[in-house]
Amino acid sequence: MVLNKSVIMLKRPEEYPIPGEHFGLQESEFKPVLKNGDIATRNLALSLDPYMRPRMDAEKSYIDCFKIGEPLIAGGVAEVIESQNPRFPVGTIIEGYVGWELYTHLTEANIQDHRILHGARESSIPLSSYLGVLGMPGMTAYSSLIEVGAPKAGETIFISAAAGAVGQLVGQMAKRLGLRVVGSVGSDEKVEFLLKDLHFDAAFNYKRGNILENLRKAAPEGIDIYYENVGGEQLEAVLEQMNDHGRIVACGMISQYNTKNAYGVRNLLQVVIKRIRFEGFLVEELYAKYGEQFDKEVGSWFANKEIKYVEDVAHGIENAMDAFVGMLKGKNFGKQVVKIADL
Amino acid sequence: MVLNKSVIMLKRPEEYPIPGEHFGLQESEFKPVLKNGDIATRNLALSLDPYMRPRMDAEKSYIDCFKIGEPLIAGGVAEVIESQNPRFPVGTIIEGYVGWELYTHLTEANIQDHRILHGARESSIPLSSYLGVLGMPGMTAYSSLIEVGAPKAGETIFISAAAGAVGQLVGQMAKRLGLRVVGSVGSDEKVEFLLKDLHFDAAFNYKRGNILENLRKAAPEGIDIYYENVGGEQLEAVLEQMNDHGRIVACGMISQYNTKNAYGVRNLLQVVIKRIRFEGFLVEELYAKYGEQFDKEVGSWFANKEIKYVEDVAHGIENAMDAFVGMLKGKNFGKQVVKIADL
Repeated sequence: MVLNKSVIMLKRPEEYPIPGEHFGLQESEFKPVLKNGDIATRNLALSLDPYMRPRMDAEKSYIDCFKIGEPLIAGGVAEVIESQNPRFPVGTIIEGYVGWELYTHLTEANIQDHRILHGARESSIPLSSYLGVLGMPGMTAYSSLIEVGAPKAGETIFISAAAGAVGQLVGQMAKRLGLRVVGSVGSDEKVEFLLKDLHFDAAFNYKRGNILENLRKAAPEGIDIYYENVGGEQLEAVLEQMNDHGRIVACGMISQYNTKNAYGVRNLLQVVIKRIRFEGFLVEELYAKYGEQFDKEVGSWFANKEIKYVEDVAHGIENAMDAFVGMLKGKNFGKQVVKIADL
Repeated sequence: MVLNKSVIMLKRPEEYPIPGEHFGLQESEFKPVLKNGDIATRNLALSLDPYMRPRMDAEKSYIDCFKIGEPLIAGGVAEVIESQNPRFPVGTIIEGYVGWELYTHLTEANIQDHRILHGARESSIPLSSYLGVLGMPGMTAYSSLIEVGAPKAGETIFISAAAGAVGQLVGQMAKRLGLRVVGSVGSDEKVEFLLKDLHFDAAFNYKRGNILENLRKAAPEGIDIYYENVGGEQLEAVLEQMNDHGRIVACGMISQYNTKNAYGVRNLLQVVIKRIRFEGFLVEELYAKYGEQFDKEVGSWFANKEIKYVEDVAHGIENAMDAFVGMLKGKNFGKQVVKIADL
């Protein structure tokens, strides 16, 4: 028999999710009965991302909630081990949503957007890259910076959570476009990383000192684009330091995901006064416009080592929950992935 | 001698301005010495608008602050009574910034944007219309609804301060474009006005009951465009009831102008989740694109009585301060103007 191990949703958290209370590991026999169009996968790597935290809540956001009693869902790289679908023969390496588990039975309806990683077996590119720089976080950074941020050479961009899965790429892409790049992070070590490895123009640890004072020092000429991953206090400070016609790319607000006491932003009048555009987006809605360009440009930058991408790799499905909570608390260094199995 | 009466800025208010303390009436002799390019005006009507309140503060917003010891500034209709400028001969009726006073000396630098109201003497259109439906508030409503709101027939728009100078026009323009129109106001009498006179589809008094419940009842299918004049609590409620890809036209936030305790908006995460675009604008920056179209369309709608415009007229410069404070408190019914003199 094939033993599966899955991380199951147990109870909706109000603040940080606790392993064993809100989600937990479950063992079961994996014996899928495939209908026409279905596949079964052996999962190799999972992507853990901040947007998953709102999926734990009862209220649907832009994506369905995780269902109580069922495995959580993550972007993953997987090998097809059984198939009733000619598009995905046995042995194909795919990227797309799978369960937080060793093996997943995916119905035809659930693999519409999965992509085949041609040549992945032979390539020297690590499979986890397809979950980061060459996957959803990379596409998020690339498409939203252009579409929502409308960057112009000489402008100043400020990025919060700037060493994270998306932030580290936004910074490097903005540098390529001739912007002055400023980032905030949650540790001095990450500040060093931004300045020395990613060549940011300025960076600060938001836990040290007053955020607005830090921002004024780091961006004395004001902020033209705010790449928003954090929300709350940082957003309020940015609004004060923003220039006229500034743009806020509303990618995420991780500071607001794990609290019952959301932060009240008191200076939205700045949106009126400075004619700010503050705008959300959904990466899925930008693939049609930017997908091809992204694959070509970012694929070549990464292959040629023109951009860097740091990953924080947890090993084994048993460690996925701790890695996820750690990421929500900012303990990860770079994009959080979980390695499940070798190819 | 010609006696002038002017409303002078005395001291910056922290909350509502108080006549006699923050601004006051001053008499002086009007004997302008005109340089080449200058004019002197006899002021006929003044426009009092919410955006003037931030001009009373020390910090420059998108427009310069009122200077202590000098007359406040307002949009006005005036007659040229002395002129060293061939563009504006004596007798010309003009519209543009003048002082809150009977007579104003305008230097050449200060009349660059003033427009001549050709035919105004003979027209049956009241002069105050050029301060409202045919002036800046009308242009504000028209250009920002199209440019920022991007309205589509069948959508629902919600307008706060919906009986005000801009709100009453936005509602009628949105109806013409085939939208479902919902408004909030601060009295039951204004609710009646929206429903019976302006044919809004739904309206409520924000002082009665819970705002979010009122919104859910008035816009059960959700809000696609929020025309924002108020800020604070109403904005927070709208974010909950907004549809995906909603737009917020950030025209003003009158609830935040007169308080030291700005309201903290706690649910900006909705901007991310619903891919909302929340955007400010400055009407001056939209004239080039929409000015001609506005003059033609809105001029003809108003002349043909296809749109209504209600004004609240105070009489005499002596009553301007009370009228202004009343407007900030929502006591005006329709666009607030001050009639200074007959033509």
